[in-house]
Amino acid sequence: MKTLRVPEATVTRLSIYSRFLERLDKNGVTTVSSGDIAEGVGVSPAQVRKDLAYFGEFGTRGVGYNVKDLMKYTLRILGLDKSWSLLLVGAGNLGFALCTYKGFNMRGFTIKAVFDNHPTKVGKQIGDLEVQSLDSFENMVEKYDAKIGIIAVPPKAAQEVADLMVKTGLKAILNFAPVALNIPDNVELRNVDLSVKLEILTFNLGFHEAENI
Amino acid sequence: MKTLRVPEATVTRLSIYSRFLERLDKNGVTTVSSGDIAEGVGVSPAQVRKDLAYFGEFGTRGVGYNVKDLMKYTLRILGLDKSWSLLLVGAGNLGFALCTYKGFNMRGFTIKAVFDNHPTKVGKQIGDLEVQSLDSFENMVEKYDAKIGIIAVPPKAAQEVADLMVKTGLKAILNFAPVALNIPDNVELRNVDLSVKLEILTFNLGFHEAENI
Repeated sequence: MKTLRVPEATVTRLSIYSRFLERLDKNGVTTVSSGDIAEGVGVSPAQVRKDLAYFGEFGTRGVGYNVKDLMKYTLRILGLDKSWSLLLVGAGNLGFALCTYKGFNMRGFTIKAVFDNHPTKVGKQIGDLEVQSLDSFENMVEKYDAKIGIIAVPPKAAQEVADLMVKTGLKAILNFAPVALNIPDNVELRNVDLSVKLEILTFNLGFHEAENI
Repeated sequence: MKTLRVPEATVTRLSIYSRFLERLDKNGVTTVSSGDIAEGVGVSPAQVRKDLAYFGEFGTRGVGYNVKDLMKYTLRILGLDKSWSLLLVGAGNLGFALCTYKGFNMRGFTIKAVFDNHPTKVGKQIGDLEVQSLDSFENMVEKYDAKIGIIAVPPKAAQEVADLMVKTGLKAILNFAPVALNIPDNVELRNVDLSVKLEILTFNLGFHEAENI
């Protein structure tokens, strides 16, 4: 386990702040306080100030932050001042959904190629992309100078795909398969478990029930 | 914004601990230390102890935790000692993917009905479910005593669906549309933004590059 100087929770919130700032900027707002950001995204003003303090001095006391500057700065910290090419493995329902998910493009992520090793899927069209066999994976990593792979295959096929991604030189993997993967330390892995957020909801539902007793 | 006594980050980690404990239990492991849990999920042992301390006293000093007991306890805290009926709106690619996503069933969540208001989608079969028109939504809330709705429609249709869910008495909403929804305070809302985890990856990739300079 690698030690990051900045807590992952801070990075997650930074990602959420930057979305909020983009929305303000789009609406023509030019200045914002930590209190406004806090209220807009649902955390405390102290948390906002603490998170931003990891990255230097921002804002002017009593005046607040310049929306456009802070927005650009948060995007740069997150590595979103450039666009990223993604390679997706798995052309099932989830793969289709990810290919058409608008939230990726909104943040500068583009799925450049989709792969599947099932003969009935290779050659299929998903939007502008034609599903390719995994035999072409290495070539596409080179072609698109890709650093990030997405795994959207069934649990039992996920480790093999991860191994291929590591072998072909990807630096980061986003895994949607509900299974724990073994990955060397020099490759970043994050798992998206779609039920974690549901469990926050059920936790809170139980909490409210307890309050009503 | 409601104040929760337990930080959401703690609940998220609890959800991850409980998965790890389930895996240990399945593998026949009976006792575990906070250090083992910490290493297994990638946080510090102090964090594990602090998170569990919100919910009472666990484990025996020098012996550790009983895996089965702690697993059951975490599941109960998360509200997962019972099963939950979900109603899903949106029978597009993402809706299909969510209906077949194995991670939900593994945690006691079952999508009981799928809805879409597009005439070409109503009547379509997704696994065991037939896509219904939104006219039946209220009846299905009653039939399944549903508390949780999932929104998997395009951004511009999401608020209308959320309003329907609130009106028909749902208590919690999981929103996959990349858009900010307005929801009354007595309904829990969580957004799943599939690109947030990608941004943790790009943040870390930038961080490594900076280290290599």
